[in-house]
Amino acid sequence: MSLETVLSRIDQDLPAATERLIELLRIPSISTDPAYAGDCQTAADWLVSDLQSIGIHSEKRATPGHPMVVGHIEGDGPHILFYGHYDVQPVDPLDLWDRDPFDPAIEEVGGHKVIRGRGASDDKGQLMTFVEACRAWKSVNGTLPCKITFFFEGEEESGSPSLIPFMRDNADELKSDIALICDTGLYGDSTPTIVTMLRGLLGEDFTITGPDRDLHSGMYGGVAMNPIRVLTRILADLHDDTGRITLPGFYDGVEELPEEVLAQWQGLNFDHQAFLGEVGLKDPAGEQDRMPIEMIWSRPTCDVNGIWGGYTGAGFKTVLPSQASAKVSFRLVGQQDPDAIRASFRAYVESLLPDGFSIEYRTEKASPASQMSIDNPMFEQARQALSAEWPNPAAYVGCGGSIPIAGYFKDILGTDAMLIGFGKDDDQIHSPNEKYDLSSFHRGMRSWARILDALTR
Amino acid sequence: MSLETVLSRIDQDLPAATERLIELLRIPSISTDPAYAGDCQTAADWLVSDLQSIGIHSEKRATPGHPMVVGHIEGDGPHILFYGHYDVQPVDPLDLWDRDPFDPAIEEVGGHKVIRGRGASDDKGQLMTFVEACRAWKSVNGTLPCKITFFFEGEEESGSPSLIPFMRDNADELKSDIALICDTGLYGDSTPTIVTMLRGLLGEDFTITGPDRDLHSGMYGGVAMNPIRVLTRILADLHDDTGRITLPGFYDGVEELPEEVLAQWQGLNFDHQAFLGEVGLKDPAGEQDRMPIEMIWSRPTCDVNGIWGGYTGAGFKTVLPSQASAKVSFRLVGQQDPDAIRASFRAYVESLLPDGFSIEYRTEKASPASQMSIDNPMFEQARQALSAEWPNPAAYVGCGGSIPIAGYFKDILGTDAMLIGFGKDDDQIHSPNEKYDLSSFHRGMRSWARILDALTR
Repeated sequence: MSLETVLSRIDQDLPAATERLIELLRIPSISTDPAYAGDCQTAADWLVSDLQSIGIHSEKRATPGHPMVVGHIEGDGPHILFYGHYDVQPVDPLDLWDRDPFDPAIEEVGGHKVIRGRGASDDKGQLMTFVEACRAWKSVNGTLPCKITFFFEGEEESGSPSLIPFMRDNADELKSDIALICDTGLYGDSTPTIVTMLRGLLGEDFTITGPDRDLHSGMYGGVAMNPIRVLTRILADLHDDTGRITLPGFYDGVEELPEEVLAQWQGLNFDHQAFLGEVGLKDPAGEQDRMPIEMIWSRPTCDVNGIWGGYTGAGFKTVLPSQASAKVSFRLVGQQDPDAIRASFRAYVESLLPDGFSIEYRTEKASPASQMSIDNPMFEQARQALSAEWPNPAAYVGCGGSIPIAGYFKDILGTDAMLIGFGKDDDQIHSPNEKYDLSSFHRGMRSWARILDALTR
Repeated sequence: MSLETVLSRIDQDLPAATERLIELLRIPSISTDPAYAGDCQTAADWLVSDLQSIGIHSEKRATPGHPMVVGHIEGDGPHILFYGHYDVQPVDPLDLWDRDPFDPAIEEVGGHKVIRGRGASDDKGQLMTFVEACRAWKSVNGTLPCKITFFFEGEEESGSPSLIPFMRDNADELKSDIALICDTGLYGDSTPTIVTMLRGLLGEDFTITGPDRDLHSGMYGGVAMNPIRVLTRILADLHDDTGRITLPGFYDGVEELPEEVLAQWQGLNFDHQAFLGEVGLKDPAGEQDRMPIEMIWSRPTCDVNGIWGGYTGAGFKTVLPSQASAKVSFRLVGQQDPDAIRASFRAYVESLLPDGFSIEYRTEKASPASQMSIDNPMFEQARQALSAEWPNPAAYVGCGGSIPIAGYFKDILGTDAMLIGFGKDDDQIHSPNEKYDLSSFHRGMRSWARILDALTR
């Protein structure tokens, strides 16, 4: 039967699919709080049983933490893996919710319907878009169009401690031709996206020590070098006047955007004034010769995430402190080498330390940027399929943050990951009153049906 | 009778004078801790009774806090006021003391004798040098050489909250031709000093706000201006490469040293490498064309006493914070105008704030520098008298810190203050194992006898 029949079945089944999602949302599977460990088991059981109801062989698999759910269905053609997570964020502060976060419901907001409740968008609603697309496909065609593996974890909101070991231990089972991940968002209201660039992250947490004890600024002020003065010079000079980062070699491996991607991004007409205005800011802070959207998606950054030294309580204490500390992080892109940048940063910092000063680093992990190989034809097939469903054509986009899971699929399994999701900026994930637009849920299911069709034709 | 007779009497009476000091040191008159309020009364009573034993009409005078002790003796010639304080610092951490801080004793250290106990140097021992000089003078001559007022407070270690109101309410009684204050130190071991310059202090405690909430550095990093980046630029550029402070107009009113004072300071051969080496530092941080001793005593400074912003706990949080804060203080000299410098600082800071940023100041008190008018002939008379007692001639020196009491005498009573004291750098005032060299005590008494003689001849 045709794709159109599957899409119609999705349309007809929307009320029942919404009911199933609401049932899943009622389970308070907060992974970070041990009090909800039983609920995480319940959510995993619910998914196993739901997959089995579609005819997918599935089971709960134990880990040292919350269980994985793994399901398989055989078929011809490519082997597709779908990843999602069934755990959710905590709900405090509870008094900022307009309803019980685990008593979800459909609400009407500004003329359109939303599913309100913890996990509605992140990630139960998104996860179920794929499951429901498969259910519709199976009920129409009696089978699925290819071999599909379902892989759900219950620890994403608490750092995925069991994920890497589980992937390593079950690599043969999970290896596939493409990993689909549904945990990202639309661009605006009506432009679907495929994330093809994820920035990496390098952190440096350090303390510089000058005098071997706190000094009285009356007795020593003027003659004794103040570590805060040294630290502020170090940090201030990390950027030049044009917003460029000054570390030698920092831009080695930073690549220019492919022309087609640059054209897509220009076409998005990113309204940086609205984006910044929404958080009380005005002018873009990055390299002044770059588009603001590049500053977020494809350019490397340096930010001081924390700084402290001396007396920080109420009133005044005229101390000339012994130490000053900072946490600095770099978002990395392209082929930037975290180790080389760490070395360059440390050489720079140490070149500005006065004689007699010392420095201590608290080493932090570093990860390079991930770039999806859009040469894999599945990317363009999926992009065309998405474009057919939504008002605007789908765009390859960057993501300023780090989604380490995408990298794990590549590094551990050798599988390309394709990040496609239907969340909106105002979904309030991780915050009170989380919601998922019913249109995201509905068009999300239809999108996956189209993608399954496109990847297996 | 001659000064020599008084000095001999001081020498003979040293053991008894030491016993009296030890008696006073046994009283735990810690002003900042309400548990010791009764002991502060006891110390004041002890002083009243001791002054009366010399024939000085004296009494305890109530304040909202601990009492003042005021004593008068009539006489011809100038009216001299002597100020000291009978309260002491707390003694924690008690386990770092080698003896009970309130069971004082004479100890032999490296071949010379010290009086060990809380308050031995700061300020009971110093206070008693003057009282004992008067006792010897009176017992030899039957009277004192001029009208003398004794003025002891019991709140110096807790900010002197009652001092200004008491001075205002009793101005006529306390007004005098010179106020002698014994709460400072020698230069090295054998050079007595008269402090003629005290730096002023201007504090600025402020917070700058950029984005109206903490942001995720993945989502906003690069495009959103980080307040810590703005703050470090502001603070770093307060000094230029030569250690000079860059605020427009900052050096207005900073005066060059009188030639005779400059010559005295050069003669002190200040060993800045030893001074800095003792706290683990190497190179002087101030204006590179100045002597290190000038950096401490006569040049203005700028120090960041505290800085904070963003995430400062363990591990990493990739936050782009909404706010960053600092406490900055300036030590002022000469005729520098605190109000003008505050205005210049704020104009400078605000010139570096990006559009859309805001700033909040928590206003702090400011005090200009104090400079004693060494044109008053009493200063040179005292300097000559001190020079006769000690191995090295006495020097007019600066003091990097602020001793507000000196300014109060000038501002409230119109009385010049002369700061002369016999403490040593290793007296460990405010710290465990405080001591006062017996030689400081002995020569201190002899110094005051010589000064009384010089000022009244």
